[in-house]
Amino acid sequence: MSEKTFVLAPDSFKESMTAKEVCIAMEKGLRKVYPAANYIHVPMADGGEGTVQSLVDASGGQIHYIEVTGPLGQPVTAKYGILGDGTTAAIEMASASGIHLVTEETKNPLITTTYGTGELIRECLDQGIRKMIIGIGGSATNDGGTGMAEALGAKFLDEKGNLLPRGGGYLDRLASIDISSLDERLRETRLIVACDVTNPLCGEHGASHVFGPQKGATPEMVRRLDANLAHYAEVVKQQLYKDVRDIPGAGAAGGLGAGLLIFTQAVLRKGIEIVVEYTRLKQKLADADIVFTGEGGIDFQTKFGKTPYGVARAAKESGKKVIAIAGYVGEGIDTLYAEGIDAVFGIVPGASGLEKLLAEGPQNVERTCENIARVLKLSEQA
Amino acid sequence: MSEKTFVLAPDSFKESMTAKEVCIAMEKGLRKVYPAANYIHVPMADGGEGTVQSLVDASGGQIHYIEVTGPLGQPVTAKYGILGDGTTAAIEMASASGIHLVTEETKNPLITTTYGTGELIRECLDQGIRKMIIGIGGSATNDGGTGMAEALGAKFLDEKGNLLPRGGGYLDRLASIDISSLDERLRETRLIVACDVTNPLCGEHGASHVFGPQKGATPEMVRRLDANLAHYAEVVKQQLYKDVRDIPGAGAAGGLGAGLLIFTQAVLRKGIEIVVEYTRLKQKLADADIVFTGEGGIDFQTKFGKTPYGVARAAKESGKKVIAIAGYVGEGIDTLYAEGIDAVFGIVPGASGLEKLLAEGPQNVERTCENIARVLKLSEQA
Repeated sequence: MSEKTFVLAPDSFKESMTAKEVCIAMEKGLRKVYPAANYIHVPMADGGEGTVQSLVDASGGQIHYIEVTGPLGQPVTAKYGILGDGTTAAIEMASASGIHLVTEETKNPLITTTYGTGELIRECLDQGIRKMIIGIGGSATNDGGTGMAEALGAKFLDEKGNLLPRGGGYLDRLASIDISSLDERLRETRLIVACDVTNPLCGEHGASHVFGPQKGATPEMVRRLDANLAHYAEVVKQQLYKDVRDIPGAGAAGGLGAGLLIFTQAVLRKGIEIVVEYTRLKQKLADADIVFTGEGGIDFQTKFGKTPYGVARAAKESGKKVIAIAGYVGEGIDTLYAEGIDAVFGIVPGASGLEKLLAEGPQNVERTCENIARVLKLSEQA
Repeated sequence: MSEKTFVLAPDSFKESMTAKEVCIAMEKGLRKVYPAANYIHVPMADGGEGTVQSLVDASGGQIHYIEVTGPLGQPVTAKYGILGDGTTAAIEMASASGIHLVTEETKNPLITTTYGTGELIRECLDQGIRKMIIGIGGSATNDGGTGMAEALGAKFLDEKGNLLPRGGGYLDRLASIDISSLDERLRETRLIVACDVTNPLCGEHGASHVFGPQKGATPEMVRRLDANLAHYAEVVKQQLYKDVRDIPGAGAAGGLGAGLLIFTQAVLRKGIEIVVEYTRLKQKLADADIVFTGEGGIDFQTKFGKTPYGVARAAKESGKKVIAIAGYVGEGIDTLYAEGIDAVFGIVPGASGLEKLLAEGPQNVERTCENIARVLKLSEQA
């Protein structure tokens, strides 16, 4: 019997382990039962938090840090990754313009800006990068990506030709957009935007109405922000001949989706699909006997584009079996079996508070995987 | 391929499910994957709490209730079981004389009595029973089994020939034991005592020193109780020609182990061995493809005679594979693999308080067993 090959393709377990750390713990457990097996680590993500780390880890790339302008204008240290190919960057907008960079007291979508995200893109351009993967979840902003564009040379002007203050709250005064100084390198740069939402820019399903409140918008602010984005879309349509208002995903990240479509060569794709492609998961699955995946939580929502679902889909194409583990196993996991997730196991050893479980993640992953392997082995012998 | 046979032999999950309820939940989960398999339920116990229920459930017997004298003299409703054979009874001493029948305020091993346990035995004799299995864990007493013997006709007298008050605190005044009225039916009755401790009656490893404090004894009371039991053993030796003082297990249940050895035809055996025998587990294992066991908690202590260990031992004899589940998976489970427990899985779905987990036990058992079955099935197909 030839040695088995296990592909380990988990997401991170938020606040407990990076995806790479999960891979290591999985292998540790499995190796106790299959010491001579081949273990292929493919740290995964779904375009959300942890995507840069996983893409860098999966490709053997490197994380870089740079100071940029935070959502409230304050300096923040943001990170980006250069993948192992040396030519692709990975960015999470939240690193520069994320909701975690404002407090309950200071969050204010009228003034928060995506300017720092633009600085991240510019830094990558300066590094010679012409292909970028951008995750746009977790924003604190509602500025339609105008801050991002400004950092890359666009000018948003009022009737008198003065620069507008940054933030979605001032876009009602937008009279003209000057793109004469827009960074020319953007023309030859491909931006692959990880975007799982399909919200349009404006209206009741738009950025302001759906995501504004969680960024601190009152009902009155929501109405104002929505009207401003509609005005912005109208100016863009008139002056730049682009109609982004109703494109699915334009409303992602406070309209950053729209901004990227307007000012860059952007294509919006599902996060998990991008990660599957850039980790070369399907190629790595080719020799797998069993695929292990996992995420902090697994439930019925997993099938709406989360990592275990994406891994299962990819595995199913080549007829591979998939076993998933999770720190939290929620309702509706039986609906995942048909999606190619063959079994789901919780890793939690007993009644326990969250803090302790987060700290003990690696040992619980290891123990659970060891015992799954013991059952696999057991049925081999039967 | 012929249909599989699964033997389900769990202990109860304390405060959550009886062993029988665990069997039902296990089958429910497994049946989703193996709808046509044979499922053999063998609700187990280890001689501790739940033993009567499991023996009755496993044999198709019946539970009976009777009012007896509680540890403090108060009336309590105690239960006993008549097994499916109609000729064997099962008793838990704790049901009549247990620590849960006294409060923090009223627990007092000087005066608590095993009288109610004697009444339970007498009731079984009245029912025509001549073979009894007695679990003696969880006692509130330290009376050397004198209360039990008194209920069955023995008289414990002081120098003046007066009956002693009940309780281990008065045995210093014991001058003579009158067994002329001891129930004659005991001579033809076999008592199989489930006893996992090896403590002698007296001394630093004896009943009073080791178990007295948890029953409410102060250091002064411990010394007094220990001296009293030594005096009792001496009187027994002189007058009844039995020397039980140093027999392993004589110190179990505040010396009830000794009392049973003195006044009845008792044999002390390990609880799990008795249960394995009276549930006919080994015979039921004969056709098993896989054996499922489990207990509320599984850890390194499991190998000191707990149910999953006993099931694994029995299964190992016939080369059967054993998978265990638990509400709490503790330290040292890797030491169980060599004992014949092939894999251990926690059933807990995530960070959670105990109360919720106890309430949701059945669904968690079901989900876990379904997923184990899915892995078994998966490797069949590989």
